[in-house]
Amino acid sequence: MDKYKTLREAAYEANMEIQHQRLAIYTFGNVSAIDRAAGVVAIKPSGVPYSALKPADMVLVDLDNQVLEGNLRPSSDTKTHTLLYRHFDTIGGICHTHSTYAVAWAQAVREIPNLGTTHADHLTKAVPVTEVMSDEMILGNYEHETGNQIIDTFTRQNLSPLEVEMVLVACHGPFTWGKDAAKAVYNAAVLEELAKMAYLTMQINPAIAPIKQTLVDKHYFRKHGKQAYYGQND
Amino acid sequence: MDKYKTLREAAYEANMEIQHQRLAIYTFGNVSAIDRAAGVVAIKPSGVPYSALKPADMVLVDLDNQVLEGNLRPSSDTKTHTLLYRHFDTIGGICHTHSTYAVAWAQAVREIPNLGTTHADHLTKAVPVTEVMSDEMILGNYEHETGNQIIDTFTRQNLSPLEVEMVLVACHGPFTWGKDAAKAVYNAAVLEELAKMAYLTMQINPAIAPIKQTLVDKHYFRKHGKQAYYGQND
Amino acid sequence: MDKYKTLREAAYEANMEIQHQRLAIYTFGNVSAIDRAAGVVAIKPSGVPYSALKPADMVLVDLDNQVLEGNLRPSSDTKTHTLLYRHFDTIGGICHTHSTYAVAWAQAVREIPNLGTTHADHLTKAVPVTEVMSDEMILGNYEHETGNQIIDTFTRQNLSPLEVEMVLVACHGPFTWGKDAAKAVYNAAVLEELAKMAYLTMQINPAIAPIKQTLVDKHYFRKHGKQAYYGQND
Amino acid sequence: MDKYKTLREAAYEANMEIQHQRLAIYTFGNVSAIDRAAGVVAIKPSGVPYSALKPADMVLVDLDNQVLEGNLRPSSDTKTHTLLYRHFDTIGGICHTHSTYAVAWAQAVREIPNLGTTHADHLTKAVPVTEVMSDEMILGNYEHETGNQIIDTFTRQNLSPLEVEMVLVACHGPFTWGKDAAKAVYNAAVLEELAKMAYLTMQINPAIAPIKQTLVDKHYFRKHGKQAYYGQND
Repeated sequence: MDKYKTLREAAYEANMEIQHQRLAIYTFGNVSAIDRAAGVVAIKPSGVPYSALKPADMVLVDLDNQVLEGNLRPSSDTKTHTLLYRHFDTIGGICHTHSTYAVAWAQAVREIPNLGTTHADHLTKAVPVTEVMSDEMILGNYEHETGNQIIDTFTRQNLSPLEVEMVLVACHGPFTWGKDAAKAVYNAAVLEELAKMAYLTMQINPAIAPIKQTLVDKHYFRKHGKQAYYGQND
Repeated sequence: MDKYKTLREAAYEANMEIQHQRLAIYTFGNVSAIDRAAGVVAIKPSGVPYSALKPADMVLVDLDNQVLEGNLRPSSDTKTHTLLYRHFDTIGGICHTHSTYAVAWAQAVREIPNLGTTHADHLTKAVPVTEVMSDEMILGNYEHETGNQIIDTFTRQNLSPLEVEMVLVACHGPFTWGKDAAKAVYNAAVLEELAKMAYLTMQINPAIAPIKQTLVDKHYFRKHGKQAYYGQND
Repeated sequence: MDKYKTLREAAYEANMEIQHQRLAIYTFGNVSAIDRAAGVVAIKPSGVPYSALKPADMVLVDLDNQVLEGNLRPSSDTKTHTLLYRHFDTIGGICHTHSTYAVAWAQAVREIPNLGTTHADHLTKAVPVTEVMSDEMILGNYEHETGNQIIDTFTRQNLSPLEVEMVLVACHGPFTWGKDAAKAVYNAAVLEELAKMAYLTMQINPAIAPIKQTLVDKHYFRKHGKQAYYGQND
Repeated sequence: MDKYKTLREAAYEANMEIQHQRLAIYTFGNVSAIDRAAGVVAIKPSGVPYSALKPADMVLVDLDNQVLEGNLRPSSDTKTHTLLYRHFDTIGGICHTHSTYAVAWAQAVREIPNLGTTHADHLTKAVPVTEVMSDEMILGNYEHETGNQIIDTFTRQNLSPLEVEMVLVACHGPFTWGKDAAKAVYNAAVLEELAKMAYLTMQINPAIAPIKQTLVDKHYFRKHGKQAYYGQND
């Protein structure tokens, strides 16, 4: 009997999707999935290339970062994942990639402005960027502090992790999440596309302003919430 | 007996071509085909990923947006399609994508100037961009008003939907059309290529002007109309 | 007995390579091959998509543009090909594409400067760009005049078609050639790569100057001519 | 008995990876592997396309560039490889590509600044660029001098070939290395990604500065050296 077979497989499938969607090369990036009832997280092992990854390689950890099951060391970013799960209690999966355009905005330490309906279909605000981390945080519990930077950004900007499922960690790259691991990777792919579209838009017209709030709301709420009429009733 | 089997299949094949030509990711984008004699439109169901799409999923609607057949909800952009069919009575298919470079021009609220013969081979004018929609239109019958924005742009600029088979909806993205659904998607792929070429051209030489009208006409009319000598006599 | 079977197949294979190397979409682009002894050119038929192309579709024409064999109309650019064959009597194949970056430089009406050894490995000069065509030429024998524009550019700049096997037709796109049709397409793929590299280089450092002549000569002549030591002795 | 079968196969596999990772087109680029005990290098033959390459085609040379085994002429860049092996005595493989973004930085004669953690995960400094070669060096023992330019850059900037496994040769392109040939090609792929990310970052925010040294060290040393905790204990 393998109690966490489904959780491991969900994490495995979502990790493989990083490669299929070309959101990272070699061993870069990682996805986790959480079983909220059990308080157990399945996450990619550290430094294993996607081509060699198997469902059984997923490492099970608890929310205090203790390994519960698995022969491999968990992702070096595990503490970032667990802190986000603890603070954003509605999310079921987290994805971290090094996708090219999202990383470029993170390295530029610029939020991605909401310049069109493709963006508004997915979130109501700019994609936020954290502050640059202090030396103290870097030299301290680094991966834990990365999570703190994200949470602080959401607190400071009064953002909901249900309405904004993505963030850029300054000088580093994107983290995305969602109701499950598959949705987290979906959001990573959408973010990369939004990052590229915004990059090109600002190259064509550097003076362009974000779209009006009525248009943001129209597109966001035709896909999300009780008034949604996009998609099927399932 | 399935009276609209051919129409559904044409719409299905054209929708799948969006994915094959990489003009949108996941569920983005939609194509419809019309049977003019019957006044029936087959359109992609809302929010269904291309990988799961089947010919039988195509939804049949009439030009008043009433669903005639189908178990799924039609595309949320259906009202834009039907309004265009009503006003542009020569067209047989409509395609909406979120292709990256075309969206960037739409988000930049800039028309795509006619900078070369690849463009002139397909249309005689710049690719027009609509005005930004007013709050009233957004808060009203939004998808219907999107169609109105397109029609107003063509009226104001005195454009023929037979000579200009593509448009950018400001802050949103491209709509293209043609004699049938396949041609509509072909135009979407051509538009994406024109959008990328124009982007690069203006990065290389920001002062470049559109090409001269004689060259536009030469290329357009060697492919279109009675004097055409491009292609085969079929 | 099919006297021109080999010629047709060489033209066919080279045309298909346009698609494999992603140098044009749909029906754009064309390649021809010449049998110098017979004065016969095999060229792509006009407007036929690569996916439907067969060796038997290649059209045979003479250097006066008369169709000798074939059920299809030859490429609308045939007169450009035949004029180049008549004036550049050392070349055995010609390729015309609409590859994205090369077209962008052509539309920007800018030659591609020789900015590095990848360029110098293939040609000793900038990739030349023709002048913008006059209305008289456009309204006259257009495709023939396109060839004249290319020849005039080579004459005016004192270029050898053996040392510079590529050109940008202003407002239009690239033509490349070589000892045979395969080499012409090879040069089209190399040109696209050079065009992209030069574009990026000038975005990174707009003040960069072309590389020194000693470096150009070193790289060109280690691959070409009697002193060449690149490649195998075949 | 084939004493160098393993060495040839390692070089072959690494060369093929250039094509799989799309780091060069046609015959561009080359990889070598060294057997330090024997002082024997296996390197790609000159001018052979990847599609035709076989393990047996790898040429064996000694560190004085004498061919020991092989029917083909070794890469024209062989002297650069052997000089690097002689001076950087810890490296086991060398890779030279013409990957697009890395070449663009080399042609721009600009080092690639360390703008984020993807970069810092792999090296502690900017990717260095050599000086432009003098006419005397070009006209002299060119490929040997290319190696000298690289070594001089490392000496002048006090760089360790163990901490910085990549360099841009001005006006030319990248050379990368590592403990073996596979790692050298891995570094070439990472460099191309870093080059693209840095390019985009500086387009988005031209005023961006390199990341702080604490962050560089944090990321580099969590993957390298005795304190590393990234990856598995193998």
